[in-house]
Amino acid sequence: MIKPLFWENNQLFIIDQTLLPVEYKRIEIKNHLDMADAIKRLAIRGAPAIGIAAAAGLVVGLKPFINSDSVLFFEKLNEISTLLNSTRPTAVNLSWALKRMKSVAELANHKPVPDIWDRLYREALNIHREDIEMCQTISRHGQSIIPKKANILTHCNTGGLATGGLGTALGIIITAYQLAKDIHVYVDETRPLLQGARLTAWELSEEKVPHTLISDNMAAYVMSTRKIDAVIVGADRIAANGDAANKIGTYGLAILASYHSVPFYIAAPSSTIDYSIQSGQEIIIEDRDGNEVRNIFGTQIAPLNSPAISPAFDVTPNKLITGIITEKGIFRKPYNFL
Amino acid sequence: MIKPLFWENNQLFIIDQTLLPVEYKRIEIKNHLDMADAIKRLAIRGAPAIGIAAAAGLVVGLKPFINSDSVLFFEKLNEISTLLNSTRPTAVNLSWALKRMKSVAELANHKPVPDIWDRLYREALNIHREDIEMCQTISRHGQSIIPKKANILTHCNTGGLATGGLGTALGIIITAYQLAKDIHVYVDETRPLLQGARLTAWELSEEKVPHTLISDNMAAYVMSTRKIDAVIVGADRIAANGDAANKIGTYGLAILASYHSVPFYIAAPSSTIDYSIQSGQEIIIEDRDGNEVRNIFGTQIAPLNSPAISPAFDVTPNKLITGIITEKGIFRKPYNFL
Repeated sequence: MIKPLFWENNQLFIIDQTLLPVEYKRIEIKNHLDMADAIKRLAIRGAPAIGIAAAAGLVVGLKPFINSDSVLFFEKLNEISTLLNSTRPTAVNLSWALKRMKSVAELANHKPVPDIWDRLYREALNIHREDIEMCQTISRHGQSIIPKKANILTHCNTGGLATGGLGTALGIIITAYQLAKDIHVYVDETRPLLQGARLTAWELSEEKVPHTLISDNMAAYVMSTRKIDAVIVGADRIAANGDAANKIGTYGLAILASYHSVPFYIAAPSSTIDYSIQSGQEIIIEDRDGNEVRNIFGTQIAPLNSPAISPAFDVTPNKLITGIITEKGIFRKPYNFL
Repeated sequence: MIKPLFWENNQLFIIDQTLLPVEYKRIEIKNHLDMADAIKRLAIRGAPAIGIAAAAGLVVGLKPFINSDSVLFFEKLNEISTLLNSTRPTAVNLSWALKRMKSVAELANHKPVPDIWDRLYREALNIHREDIEMCQTISRHGQSIIPKKANILTHCNTGGLATGGLGTALGIIITAYQLAKDIHVYVDETRPLLQGARLTAWELSEEKVPHTLISDNMAAYVMSTRKIDAVIVGADRIAANGDAANKIGTYGLAILASYHSVPFYIAAPSSTIDYSIQSGQEIIIEDRDGNEVRNIFGTQIAPLNSPAISPAFDVTPNKLITGIITEKGIFRKPYNFL
């Protein structure tokens, strides 16, 4: 299975996803600063994966304080959590994982510091292991919406590279293929950072799943000229009313799916649901550097003086979402997660 | 003014648009083979410009036969026309210009061959000059749909580089700016070949028109978060019922505009209307090489073994088109060009 993050001889490594598919390179994460940098520059990305990464980053960041007193240790825990939590604003998994780590430490605050650290280390592994199980459950639940023969369109990357396990939306798709369903996947390249072309097409190639890469603006053409049975994508944060933030382009894709009467599904662990947010209007959208649009993989594609924007996400309103596939089952509209 | 094609001391040149905006390079077109190659690899592109280019390519291709007998000259005229006409299938302007050239030659078939060639040369210049005038007229007609302060979204390149003159959709936009309207242009980068990022953003930079470059999948986000007053694009072939073929992505953009109640306009010379075609279903869509999607500007962005498609155009149904702006005025739905 493809792993975005792993421990080896007590050392923490990630795959630098910015280099895929041209180069498969692992890099060691020696401390929380390395991890914050890796999350910010998207060397590790995908909502579930960055939750796992933040927990692991906290563990390596706290290791130098394993022999400190408890006060300093908790000070550092807060400091490192705040840093890791600030790396990206949209996905809820980051703060969800860090809150969970913090409460484990607080529950153990009467213990010796090395024990607290050890609990944190085990909790980071738990978060990772639970994500693997969650992916499996989501992939199983998702089968009910995939016919025996299906053309599926997906956006961005929601596979093994984006999670701890099989993936969410892509986990469902790859599982369908492994269950001998006749699957063909249309893969949106997903500009600006091309997670579809670079990561999803690569994962599907590795798994031998039949697929066709398209540029994002071909989705409407594909929906009108070929039978598409479903669009399935992930989510970075879901509001209590079912509005969902996901990779930029998802909202447009949902409109196109609705226009062509193609069912539009979100697949995500239930931890993606942010109960504190009533609707998608409250979700903060990360604005990234316009250079991501003016350049592709280091190649200039536009005048350097042309202003560009790079919102990393958009919000799809609940009415355009046919169903939300989680490890707890498939929710259907109208959504009310409160 | 930006010129995609020009004559200088009886030599024919084009700007190699595949290198813009990084390099501005002119290349000499010595014969029809050079021109066929330039059209195929999109060194010159844009429906009006390739009509002008085909006429000019025929002229340089026939020059070596200026002292041949009339039979051979007409044989070569047919042969070269067929070749140039086969370079790209979707835009009607190619066959329109070549038919026009052929009838000029046929009308003069009793004249000495050098005179016929001379008439062809002058006709190629006429086609070019008329296009300049057509662009001006279209740009004037288009002003009625652009308010004094307007955010406009456009796709692909429809400016000076795509035509003989000011441009069609972009001609309207640049003219609005020159008439002191408060214009802001959102420019779709237009994958796979990035005519928006490379050519439209460059033309707008040169003309100092305020603009923001976006990747194609940001259009829905922009429509939902900023007030967009109109989408204006070009067309490569318009059926008698108003269905319009244009750069891939246009159809999806028209759906997004309709969803957000944004008026969606096509701007094109009336020669783009193909009266022989009842509806868009009859328009042949050029399928280009999937390598255009797997690579960007020579940089690999996907696994080389991932299949990819590259339809160059899609068809927007008439019901999604608010108006068609031509040199004869603005047509509004329902369209009936017969």
